Amino acid sequence: MPDLSKPAVTVLGAGDMGSALVRALLAAGYPTTVWNRTPERAKPLVAEGATQATTVAEAVEASRLVIVCLLDYKSVTEVLDTARDALAGQVLVNLTNGTQGQARELAGRYDVDYLDGGIMAVPPMIASPAAFVFYSGSRSAYDTNKPVLEVFGESIYVGTDPGFAALHDIGLLSGMYGMFVGGLHALALVTSAGIPATKFAPLLKRYVSSMTGYVDRMAEQIDKQDYAIDVTSNIAMQSAGYVNLTLSAEEQGISPELLAPLGPLMAQRVADGHGHEDLGGVVELLKKGNKK
Amino acid sequence: MPDLSKPAVTVLGAGDMGSALVRALLAAGYPTTVWNRTPERAKPLVAEGATQATTVAEAVEASRLVIVCLLDYKSVTEVLDTARDALAGQVLVNLTNGTQGQARELAGRYDVDYLDGGIMAVPPMIASPAAFVFYSGSRSAYDTNKPVLEVFGESIYVGTDPGFAALHDIGLLSGMYGMFVGGLHALALVTSAGIPATKFAPLLKRYVSSMTGYVDRMAEQIDKQDYAIDVTSNIAMQSAGYVNLTLSAEEQGISPELLAPLGPLMAQRVADGHGHEDLGGVVELLKKGNKK
Repeated sequence: MPDLSKPAVTVLGAGDMGSALVRALLAAGYPTTVWNRTPERAKPLVAEGATQATTVAEAVEASRLVIVCLLDYKSVTEVLDTARDALAGQVLVNLTNGTQGQARELAGRYDVDYLDGGIMAVPPMIASPAAFVFYSGSRSAYDTNKPVLEVFGESIYVGTDPGFAALHDIGLLSGMYGMFVGGLHALALVTSAGIPATKFAPLLKRYVSSMTGYVDRMAEQIDKQDYAIDVTSNIAMQSAGYVNLTLSAEEQGISPELLAPLGPLMAQRVADGHGHEDLGGVVELLKKGNKK
Repeated sequence: MPDLSKPAVTVLGAGDMGSALVRALLAAGYPTTVWNRTPERAKPLVAEGATQATTVAEAVEASRLVIVCLLDYKSVTEVLDTARDALAGQVLVNLTNGTQGQARELAGRYDVDYLDGGIMAVPPMIASPAAFVFYSGSRSAYDTNKPVLEVFGESIYVGTDPGFAALHDIGLLSGMYGMFVGGLHALALVTSAGIPATKFAPLLKRYVSSMTGYVDRMAEQIDKQDYAIDVTSNIAMQSAGYVNLTLSAEEQGISPELLAPLGPLMAQRVADGHGHEDLGGVVELLKKGNKK
């Protein structure tokens, strides 16, 4: 039963993630209205206590707080453009995956108090202790609606720039995919020699975790744009050793492609006279126009 | 003062790592003989208690246990070829960086009890609790000399195949470099938008550490060569979302090259009909001949 002392919430989108958001709101007692382009997908949510709206405008009018979680930004604008008048003055929280540029464009597109969010969870994790969500944009929209937003998981407000939530989201995913890239290469390599992946994985996890401190050192250097170090191993030594990663993979008939791009970037830093410095200087080559 | 009840040890090579090994042996009381191609580099070690040999053969004859730590395998064979007779019957522990193929070649090149090692430490870490060394090859050479070998750090014996130490070493470095690749991309991205790297790094470390459990899941799937999953998010969803990583970087004027290779591999798994499966299936495309 919804708790009528709690504010109404609308969710546009009943895909896997949208449905998980609706269920979390219902479980927390919020009167919840849902709309989905294909109405059948929202039916199970109605059986669980949600109210289904037949049009976007009707859904948007049902609650001051409107959460949108669709496939992509193109879907978001297509859907919201049909309810421009209804949106006027509402709080719009966009939890659709997208880039910082898309979030910024959306923040100015409608007459709303705009908050953008980046969900760091897959749908089954919503409302669990492991889930967290970055928010950026309207500070007042965040502060006013924090109790609702925290139903989904820990909330982290990262600034008034509506693009910052997406930048934090994509930044963390980049870190995660980098770790996966290393893991996939490593497991392909060792299993090709008959070493069981499940035997190697605990060593890999332990080692990667032990090296995360290096990220702090890179971060300090990047903020100062000063990559000087007085300890081994400098980028010239790392670059020389990196050759063995490629060679070792080729000996096993494993493509080194996943880790290949770092090699030439290290070599270029060395060629540019930064051989005595640290690996973090590679970020300078990622900036537009800095690479030769 | 060397403890004459302890066995003599010879170290060939007095570069940064070789010197660190000699110092650790001296600190533990082992009578230590050192040889270096450029004799001057070994002088400080003599002042600290080491005995300097003038030829490789003299060094090799000074101790039953001969540790070699040079620049690369080419240097190792050039140096050891000059002392083939002296090496006969000795225990040779090779701690030079190299590939599994180079280790296997070396194991059969001389009439020695051969052990290969992969040092998971930079020179200043030698003999600290954080250092560890993989060993593979002769089990008897490992068992007999374990007390000496553990002077350098924790020792982990990984099999009789002399190439397995290098495979473990390079496998862990691959995992580490993958994490660095993700970290470099992420920090380049967020700092380009004015988010301090030192502010973002703690979030990045926390998130990457929280996702290492996924490596276990990948490892189980890889051993079974079965990448089926019944939860989100499958590789089709990940592949669709991965587009935002590239787009977000391009919006910021950051080259997406470090993380670029994973995109086409995910897309190919989807195109090959594995879209409902997990990311780990990408390893199948890294195996020679499996990629179209």
